[in-house]
Amino acid sequence: MKTVVLLSGGLDSSTVLAIAVKEGFKPYAISFRYGQRHKVELDAASRIAQSFNVEQHIIVDIDMQKIGGSALTDDINVPKERSEEQMGTGIPITYVPARNTIFLSYALGWAEVLGSSNIHLGVNILDYSGYPDCRPEYIKAFEVMANLATKASTEGEKKLSIHTPLINLSKSEIIQKGIDLGVDYSLTSSCYDPSSEGEPCGGCDSCQLRNKGFAEIGIEDPLIQKFKGR
Amino acid sequence: MKTVVLLSGGLDSSTVLAIAVKEGFKPYAISFRYGQRHKVELDAASRIAQSFNVEQHIIVDIDMQKIGGSALTDDINVPKERSEEQMGTGIPITYVPARNTIFLSYALGWAEVLGSSNIHLGVNILDYSGYPDCRPEYIKAFEVMANLATKASTEGEKKLSIHTPLINLSKSEIIQKGIDLGVDYSLTSSCYDPSSEGEPCGGCDSCQLRNKGFAEIGIEDPLIQKFKGR
Repeated sequence: MKTVVLLSGGLDSSTVLAIAVKEGFKPYAISFRYGQRHKVELDAASRIAQSFNVEQHIIVDIDMQKIGGSALTDDINVPKERSEEQMGTGIPITYVPARNTIFLSYALGWAEVLGSSNIHLGVNILDYSGYPDCRPEYIKAFEVMANLATKASTEGEKKLSIHTPLINLSKSEIIQKGIDLGVDYSLTSSCYDPSSEGEPCGGCDSCQLRNKGFAEIGIEDPLIQKFKGR
Repeated sequence: MKTVVLLSGGLDSSTVLAIAVKEGFKPYAISFRYGQRHKVELDAASRIAQSFNVEQHIIVDIDMQKIGGSALTDDINVPKERSEEQMGTGIPITYVPARNTIFLSYALGWAEVLGSSNIHLGVNILDYSGYPDCRPEYIKAFEVMANLATKASTEGEKKLSIHTPLINLSKSEIIQKGIDLGVDYSLTSSCYDPSSEGEPCGGCDSCQLRNKGFAEIGIEDPLIQKFKGR
């Protein structure tokens, strides 16, 4: 059975891809190029897609800069070294307006073309404290809408499901699951502001969450190991 | 009050823009460049946006060709001279998978950046016989989802509304309303397959619906008049 996997090249989406493969799905990976900051992430997405032999990997260009409104697409500095309390409060300026809605909409279009009624997405509880479009009630509402949006939905075909296997997991549980499923995390990239070679900054919210996750299970992040050895 | 108007440059969306202006909204127009076929339409969108003095008009590039699946984005011929019965049956191959979902998602993102809680969209009953994502139940479901997707929705701010003032109108009623509101339809373009100068083919579904609408109110389409005079 085909599924469309939203693959950013980060830790979460790479783990979701491994889970989809384990569940027996034929994965079609979709990534997005938006703004200039994310070349490192897209390279990571390509490596991960390849390492799991996906059926196809497409990178869709999306034009978020016309809309603006985020540190990830505009020329605003990514915040660094925020405390856990700061991270838990309010919506970070790395929030991209309607990002998951736009991503899921493309995934929906591609699923329809492929004749797939599955989408896999790596949202989890750590995100939805900050990002509104990571909340389970949002995902559910998107699914309801999607089931009215497509040709298949008018022809009584199989309903589209959005799978969010990480939704209730902590970062360390995600990492543990990925390691069990053979994810090579040295291929991934989570940092909002990496060097051009892909070395993580260590200070952004995403690096801090990742580092804490690896620390909790007592494993060194193979990505950090890779750069140490240089 | 700000509103984001989805403006294709066609007859319907141009009329919606006029209605939004009449209702007292400050219009922000958004158009999409997808595939190669639509330069004529985008030129029309710019002319119409200008004629109504919109606050801002952005054209967002979207990468539909990676996904494929439609005569409007792939290299498939647009069907011509279909009978009314043919047009009323099934979903035409000019259907673009998840198109309105993708368009509305960008509009949602822009509305959020602008601090607007309104989107205007020109869907109507003539479309939703064929296109699943023009049905009122789809629009309603998108609105519910949108109200869970945004920052504003987590802060208890005003709810987002999707306005579809044409939804129950026939083509001739839409044209009559537009004329009453001063829309210059010679600036618009509805054809799926126009000449490079913008002359409508006359045979595609969209041309046929438009011609029938003008015929019903006994007015010559000013767009056709323009090309006759050459």
